[in-house]
Amino acid sequence: MFKQKWSKKILPVAVLSTVAFGGLMGGFSPVEAKHSKDKDKNQEIKNVIVLIGDGMGVSYTSAHRYLKDDPSTKNVEPTTLDKYLVGQQSTYPEDPSQNVTDSASAATAMSAGIKTYNNAIAVDNDGSEVKTVLEAAKEKGKATGLVATSEITHATPASFGSHDESRKNMNAIADDYYDELVNGKHKIDVMLGGGKSNFVRNDRNVAEEFKKAGYSYVENKEDLLSTKDDQLLGLFAEGGLPKMIDRDEATPSLQDMTEVALEKLSKDKDGFFLMVEGSQVDWAGHDNDIVGAMSEMEDFENAFEAAIDFAKKDKHTLVVATADHSTGGYSIGANGIYNWFGEPIKAAKRTPDFMAEQIAAGAGVEETLKKYIDQNILALTPEEIQSVETAAKTKETLEIDNAIENIFNKRSNTGWTTGGHTGEDVNVYAFGPSSSEFAGKIDNTDIAKNVFDAINYKIRINDK
Amino acid sequence: MFKQKWSKKILPVAVLSTVAFGGLMGGFSPVEAKHSKDKDKNQEIKNVIVLIGDGMGVSYTSAHRYLKDDPSTKNVEPTTLDKYLVGQQSTYPEDPSQNVTDSASAATAMSAGIKTYNNAIAVDNDGSEVKTVLEAAKEKGKATGLVATSEITHATPASFGSHDESRKNMNAIADDYYDELVNGKHKIDVMLGGGKSNFVRNDRNVAEEFKKAGYSYVENKEDLLSTKDDQLLGLFAEGGLPKMIDRDEATPSLQDMTEVALEKLSKDKDGFFLMVEGSQVDWAGHDNDIVGAMSEMEDFENAFEAAIDFAKKDKHTLVVATADHSTGGYSIGANGIYNWFGEPIKAAKRTPDFMAEQIAAGAGVEETLKKYIDQNILALTPEEIQSVETAAKTKETLEIDNAIENIFNKRSNTGWTTGGHTGEDVNVYAFGPSSSEFAGKIDNTDIAKNVFDAINYKIRINDK
Repeated sequence: MFKQKWSKKILPVAVLSTVAFGGLMGGFSPVEAKHSKDKDKNQEIKNVIVLIGDGMGVSYTSAHRYLKDDPSTKNVEPTTLDKYLVGQQSTYPEDPSQNVTDSASAATAMSAGIKTYNNAIAVDNDGSEVKTVLEAAKEKGKATGLVATSEITHATPASFGSHDESRKNMNAIADDYYDELVNGKHKIDVMLGGGKSNFVRNDRNVAEEFKKAGYSYVENKEDLLSTKDDQLLGLFAEGGLPKMIDRDEATPSLQDMTEVALEKLSKDKDGFFLMVEGSQVDWAGHDNDIVGAMSEMEDFENAFEAAIDFAKKDKHTLVVATADHSTGGYSIGANGIYNWFGEPIKAAKRTPDFMAEQIAAGAGVEETLKKYIDQNILALTPEEIQSVETAAKTKETLEIDNAIENIFNKRSNTGWTTGGHTGEDVNVYAFGPSSSEFAGKIDNTDIAKNVFDAINYKIRINDK
Repeated sequence: MFKQKWSKKILPVAVLSTVAFGGLMGGFSPVEAKHSKDKDKNQEIKNVIVLIGDGMGVSYTSAHRYLKDDPSTKNVEPTTLDKYLVGQQSTYPEDPSQNVTDSASAATAMSAGIKTYNNAIAVDNDGSEVKTVLEAAKEKGKATGLVATSEITHATPASFGSHDESRKNMNAIADDYYDELVNGKHKIDVMLGGGKSNFVRNDRNVAEEFKKAGYSYVENKEDLLSTKDDQLLGLFAEGGLPKMIDRDEATPSLQDMTEVALEKLSKDKDGFFLMVEGSQVDWAGHDNDIVGAMSEMEDFENAFEAAIDFAKKDKHTLVVATADHSTGGYSIGANGIYNWFGEPIKAAKRTPDFMAEQIAAGAGVEETLKKYIDQNILALTPEEIQSVETAAKTKETLEIDNAIENIFNKRSNTGWTTGGHTGEDVNVYAFGPSSSEFAGKIDNTDIAKNVFDAINYKIRINDK
């Protein structure tokens, strides 16, 4: 059984965070060996980058590797993530009614080191606000940033940069980003993602307020790449960004946003903390959309590469990448068949959502499908086209979307068990000084504990 | 896409095995740090124990932890496996028609370091026999053993101790165990598991031949624990052993068999190689039976603990535990619900298979269900009992079994996508000298390459 008890408060006092997993090892354990070896490495750390692939369970990272494989070579090439695998983390929340985590509870575990209820944005089970690693970094004088392909006020980034009893309060979270000061200053220097509707509102224009406070405010890729200010708010969609393969030229990639954030933040001589989320691996998982999931895996991997490239040059940057949970019960293979095919997925030039919206808006079914699915790779059968024609008669985008997704799921032999999350452990990747602290089987709360340690922020997390 | 090409031959010549993954690292990678650190550790290795949880994907190891959790404590306690997690391996085969592996191809990758077709027992895609780590250990003068809860001639143990074009030829595999000699001697000193029907046959009695050659031959736990000879054949069932929670007192556990094997093999002053398989995690997964799967996880974890206990005392033993693939597309949570419950699973005193066989043989449905499912933990509803009554009318054991499994799947909120295998990476656990060689993202062929290295057996695996 998962734990369903209520957690105690975080006490920000001057006692070093105790990271529990070291004590579990014995004898020749490589994990123990690494721990003793790297004891003082956090002295070298100036910057910390945490990347979260929302919903990015083991099947997603494995499938992405098979999708990217170079068929002209004998072996399947490792992805960039593969090269930095150090272990896994457990993700269970501490919620009175649910034992599979949501993104808010998991992000709070990773941002503040405590278990809490699903829906909680950096508050504990008593409703008290808990200190986040982003806030701690700002207190230490570091520059800070949040980058996401969801609304920048969505659960994961919100749990690093704000506090709220509910993830649903995205307007209040945008207000927090402006109103909550650390040492008299705004606590987040760079915010890049979607969610313009949460900032530019009838009741308040938070974007305008940031501009008046000296931030650049941009809404497209061209402006993003040419801003001069080091403090920056970029909102590239009313809600979430389009998925990678659906984006137009005005919309930046997660890599674009990550690179701009790194350029801005790295000007701070005291270093920086940056959280980057590949938000929509999860959204595609909820939708049981393998095309969208692989699109967002690629977007995330490219951003991870940008972080690694920066860290390799910098040599004082800790990079950690992980997921908050897995989504959809996605399996590589299904229905008794011992094959999973990447080619049908690669045939898609747009996501099923994109195609479904076009069809729901009146575009012809066959014309749309053949426009956005490479017929040389995935030649649609009359039955497949008919299944979407039938769905189109409902005029419901969701029905049309499901019909198109069903084609890709069947052709690739992709399995799903749920439209929600699942509770298995997720992978942890790390690079840079103290990266070995993340090795072995850890818990999601250890991500925050290790990052607090990495920035030499002394905090006591009462988790006995 | 997975690879579907044909591999080249293994060449057992005096060139050191090149383990590829070290070269992938750069900078501060903890994996690289460990590699350089442990370069000469294989000098210390006398014994190697490889444990394979067949079908033991990430959801299985995570779920087993949640099932074992002590509810009186705040955190979920780590399992013994958790303490030794070092990374993951990819499992893809090299089969012209399937890119999700079976147990034969995966076991051949782990026993011989080559990719081959599904169904292959230590032969390559040209049909040539490939040298296994067990054979290499015997050539080096070490004692050797195979332990499994399947037939001891089943795909996984067979791929370490024999060669055959097909896993189905289990009689021929039993013959191989006797007939294939290394330096004039039988190559396997200890064989413990099921599969009496493959040894004691009308056309040949291989058990009798082993007895005449000086082996002890036992068929029950009492005799197993009292044998004096160091060479031992133990066959405790005609086919596979009953699952752990279905066993009577005459049937040894995987831990019992592992401990006896270790006691016998460790008498060899030249050291030993032992492969232990928890065979039926996979069988339960194929059956979409969460009760059986968790029973077999517990059996495997206990055997792993026995191996670790031995290695901790011995200090010259390398222990590696992993899976060959995952099975069933098992997910912790399903159908949009954010909960997975262990209590209903713990209520089962026997597997659904066991109950179904009793019912198919004439036992009353309600009486049988209430006898073997603790009604204080999982109180069956009239509808649940009726669903099994309906299935019982078919008199088909499989129908009855499915109906009972369905109760546990729904009550625990367990999801499945397939009756076959799935292609995602599986965890790797390691302890002892050179255990860090297994860290990070490796491939199943690296298991064999590292074990060849660990026993200082020079072999060239042509995998360019």
